[in-house]
Amino acid sequence: MTFLTDIEIAQANQMKPITEIAQELDVRDEDLIPYGKYKAKIDMTSMERLANTPDGKLILVTAINPTPAGEGKTTTSVGLADGLSLIGKKTVIALREPSLGPVFGVKGGAAGGGYAQVVPMEDINLHFTGDFHAISAANNLLAAMLDNHMHHGNALGIDPRNITWKRVVDMNDRQLRYVVDGLQGKANGVPREDGFDITVASEIMAVLCLATDIVDLKERLGRIIIGYNYQGQPVTAKDLKAHGAMTVLLKDAIHPNLVQTLEHTPALVHGGPFANIAHGCNSVIATKLAMKYADYVVTEAGFGGDLGAEKFLDIKCRQANLKPAAVVLVATVRALKMHGGVSKKELEGENVEAVKAGIPNLERHIHNMQDTYGLPVVVAINKFPTDSQAELDAIDQACRQGKVEVVLSDVWAHGGQGGKTLAEKVVELTEAPNNFHFAYQADDSIEEKLNKIVQNVYGGRGVKLTGPARRQMKKLADLGFGQLPICMAKTQYSFSDDPNKLGAPEDFDITVRELKVSAGAGFIVALTGSIMTMPGLPKEPAAERIDVDAEGNIVGLF
Amino acid sequence: MTFLTDIEIAQANQMKPITEIAQELDVRDEDLIPYGKYKAKIDMTSMERLANTPDGKLILVTAINPTPAGEGKTTTSVGLADGLSLIGKKTVIALREPSLGPVFGVKGGAAGGGYAQVVPMEDINLHFTGDFHAISAANNLLAAMLDNHMHHGNALGIDPRNITWKRVVDMNDRQLRYVVDGLQGKANGVPREDGFDITVASEIMAVLCLATDIVDLKERLGRIIIGYNYQGQPVTAKDLKAHGAMTVLLKDAIHPNLVQTLEHTPALVHGGPFANIAHGCNSVIATKLAMKYADYVVTEAGFGGDLGAEKFLDIKCRQANLKPAAVVLVATVRALKMHGGVSKKELEGENVEAVKAGIPNLERHIHNMQDTYGLPVVVAINKFPTDSQAELDAIDQACRQGKVEVVLSDVWAHGGQGGKTLAEKVVELTEAPNNFHFAYQADDSIEEKLNKIVQNVYGGRGVKLTGPARRQMKKLADLGFGQLPICMAKTQYSFSDDPNKLGAPEDFDITVRELKVSAGAGFIVALTGSIMTMPGLPKEPAAERIDVDAEGNIVGLF
Repeated sequence: MTFLTDIEIAQANQMKPITEIAQELDVRDEDLIPYGKYKAKIDMTSMERLANTPDGKLILVTAINPTPAGEGKTTTSVGLADGLSLIGKKTVIALREPSLGPVFGVKGGAAGGGYAQVVPMEDINLHFTGDFHAISAANNLLAAMLDNHMHHGNALGIDPRNITWKRVVDMNDRQLRYVVDGLQGKANGVPREDGFDITVASEIMAVLCLATDIVDLKERLGRIIIGYNYQGQPVTAKDLKAHGAMTVLLKDAIHPNLVQTLEHTPALVHGGPFANIAHGCNSVIATKLAMKYADYVVTEAGFGGDLGAEKFLDIKCRQANLKPAAVVLVATVRALKMHGGVSKKELEGENVEAVKAGIPNLERHIHNMQDTYGLPVVVAINKFPTDSQAELDAIDQACRQGKVEVVLSDVWAHGGQGGKTLAEKVVELTEAPNNFHFAYQADDSIEEKLNKIVQNVYGGRGVKLTGPARRQMKKLADLGFGQLPICMAKTQYSFSDDPNKLGAPEDFDITVRELKVSAGAGFIVALTGSIMTMPGLPKEPAAERIDVDAEGNIVGLF
Repeated sequence: MTFLTDIEIAQANQMKPITEIAQELDVRDEDLIPYGKYKAKIDMTSMERLANTPDGKLILVTAINPTPAGEGKTTTSVGLADGLSLIGKKTVIALREPSLGPVFGVKGGAAGGGYAQVVPMEDINLHFTGDFHAISAANNLLAAMLDNHMHHGNALGIDPRNITWKRVVDMNDRQLRYVVDGLQGKANGVPREDGFDITVASEIMAVLCLATDIVDLKERLGRIIIGYNYQGQPVTAKDLKAHGAMTVLLKDAIHPNLVQTLEHTPALVHGGPFANIAHGCNSVIATKLAMKYADYVVTEAGFGGDLGAEKFLDIKCRQANLKPAAVVLVATVRALKMHGGVSKKELEGENVEAVKAGIPNLERHIHNMQDTYGLPVVVAINKFPTDSQAELDAIDQACRQGKVEVVLSDVWAHGGQGGKTLAEKVVELTEAPNNFHFAYQADDSIEEKLNKIVQNVYGGRGVKLTGPARRQMKKLADLGFGQLPICMAKTQYSFSDDPNKLGAPEDFDITVRELKVSAGAGFIVALTGSIMTMPGLPKEPAAERIDVDAEGNIVGLF
């Protein structure tokens, strides 16, 4: 049995002109900003005109704790959206934009897979409509203005040992992680320790994804803290008078990008913040715009439900006043086997007992969505060609005992047809009103919030703060940031902070080593370990195989 | 007397949809790639279809040695193109793209001025269609692959003390001029001295502007030298297997950008290399494409005629096999006064004697175009509201004595109407065939080429090479680069290498301190002094005044 690669499937597909996709969505001509024939932006201010249009139903796709290969959230989301279209529902899928840098490292693209993809995949994975370049420029303008301020006398008294703002580049470039810059004498800046992150780790990415309009964007950019002065007080982008020009650099990036799935379902692909130090969801503007143009909006959040869904619900939905109508929880036979104790190298081959032993991980995610958040859930088993019927049956039985619907999703192989049953189930789930609530309240103390996430979502005992983290907690509260939601930076592989504790671990504590504020994004980041914010390239990077042939065709991209 | 600002004039103007501009040029629908409603790219491969269409006439706009404010080459070019359109000629103007970084420093935009502008100016001066971001990404991918290669064992034996490739950012950021990177231990790269340039200084900018198609682009990228190994032999992008992926990153940037003047003349704005360490002209592809779609193509080259026109003719026309039909030499009363000995602070107020005393600078430029290069010339006096009639008459008389046509160009105040007389004169000049030839031959030795430029273009005695430059010259010849044209990096303010020697200095030598090859671009750079390839921001950067108002309008941009 041979399969076509993702790019072969994508290139064999005939896209519709983006103007046609827009027409089907009733996007007005004056609100469509084309970027070539198959990409466009929709002017986000068209939302104002649609203020009285009822919102579409928002469906979140999340997953159990994944294997390193991922469990196919994006693929399932695309297939579900195509399935909804197929049963006659006006649907838009809202996804994150992939990062450029990793394309040249080890991984392929990030636009779904098989017959459930978003296209044109080459463009989406390369420069797309330039949003990330605009974010890099805004990020680096702030950095240049910060160092320029110190160069010209440092009237704000910025402490060069206490600068938290880094420059960014959308490239996997480990050489830039730790640098000393401003060298070579008085004309060339102020020497200091510095470093670069990859663009998606920029707070501006999170800011763009949580802003509701250009005025809110500018205010958030102004609140960004670039570091502290010699008195230990925060210095902001607004103090540097940088936020206006930064907003100007983002004036186009704020409008969501319209593309399509292989089956021509409209897709808004917009924004892509990290899912550890940031909240890992596409932009609020894209989600809200999608809900104005469609009756059903399918979206996803990074990593598994403990990180992605938690932040989607407790940060994004809270800030943007969104209420999801249903949750799809993606599980795979492979991941359940891993949670059942099978090593990553032995996940091939039938092993029904291991699947059963992994079910508690799935059950805890179901419990979280149903009980902690009060949302209706359907489990979608993302089918792989290697899954055995006995393994699939084992999941099915376990779920039925636990009073949750379970559906086989076969969208990788069959696109929307393979997602039709899931689509019908999702529509059914969204018919009844639900009792959505958060895992913690805004006016809980920072420590209470941390404990509630650990107890109500992770299933652990509680949080332990290191000495420095406890001091930072007090300082953040003193500075007035105590009301902000929490953004947990934790391993995606376990409910705990130990990636080796698979399944549904109990009686564990989460150790928070550092707390810092992303004042523009509007959350407090709780770090449970060191997070890599600038990847490197492998010994033989994918870039070596990426090429254009004599006819100008791209080869080797995925 | 009050004048509207450039941005006020531009914003009051009603642009035509870019599809309409394209239709008037007979660009086929399938060859137009829209970027919003008022920008597009024209697929450069449409040139192949037009292979048998006769080429339009190419008109170069250059200038005398300028004052720091510039003499209005772009403004004159735009007005001339509008004037040609006005007298019924099918015209395209081909210009350079402005750099993003300087927008936030001191200067305003770079898209002409007054009633002779290219629009939409905000977009052109910000991200435009993303070309420069693509160049930054390609440049920085090569850098990341280079350091990654050294990190993973350095099989090519690259000498970390002899790396010539720098990273780039499209920002005025002096802090990055000199850095040490790869710090903090074995996992984070190889510590070395490094630095950043602004994007327009990247060799990739020059490469993109001299490439003839995507295959040539890839070959040129492969030839780029990133540094030398421990044996002193060059290491190229091809050795690192980076050139294919770099080409993929430039697959959209290779297509010229179509915009319009205020009077709706089509404008191809594409590429913008430095005019000192590079050749300072828009892309060969844009120029050639313009010549296929129009009967008259107006283009310009950076700085004055000694640098801009010399490189346009000896590098760009030589490599691309282009033959100009006429040259427009822009002069201003202000600049002539400066060459006549008036200090920069006293250029206001009538001073006929100073204008006369400055004429020898103009005369040498006329001589260069007519005799050194064999091209027909018209002098265009770019009129300023402060010029007196007696001053203008003085230039007129001097030119008539010297057997050259002189025309008053009043395009800043009156657009195409103010350029009509110039347009008629240019058409007349292009009627007769000319005897275009280069200032030196490709098979002259490097030293002969340098001497011919100094003697035939600058009017000096000859070149003096420092010891290091002489050794570099021998090495470049040994490496097989002796046939390449020369790219002089010299002050723009004087024919000599001393910015204070104004007018038409004689009996001077040009001291070349360093010679290096841009093997991808295909020229040898001769440095006569230190060239700043990363600007800084001033104490109160323009960025502090750039803002968006509550309605989302950009304010303070120019």
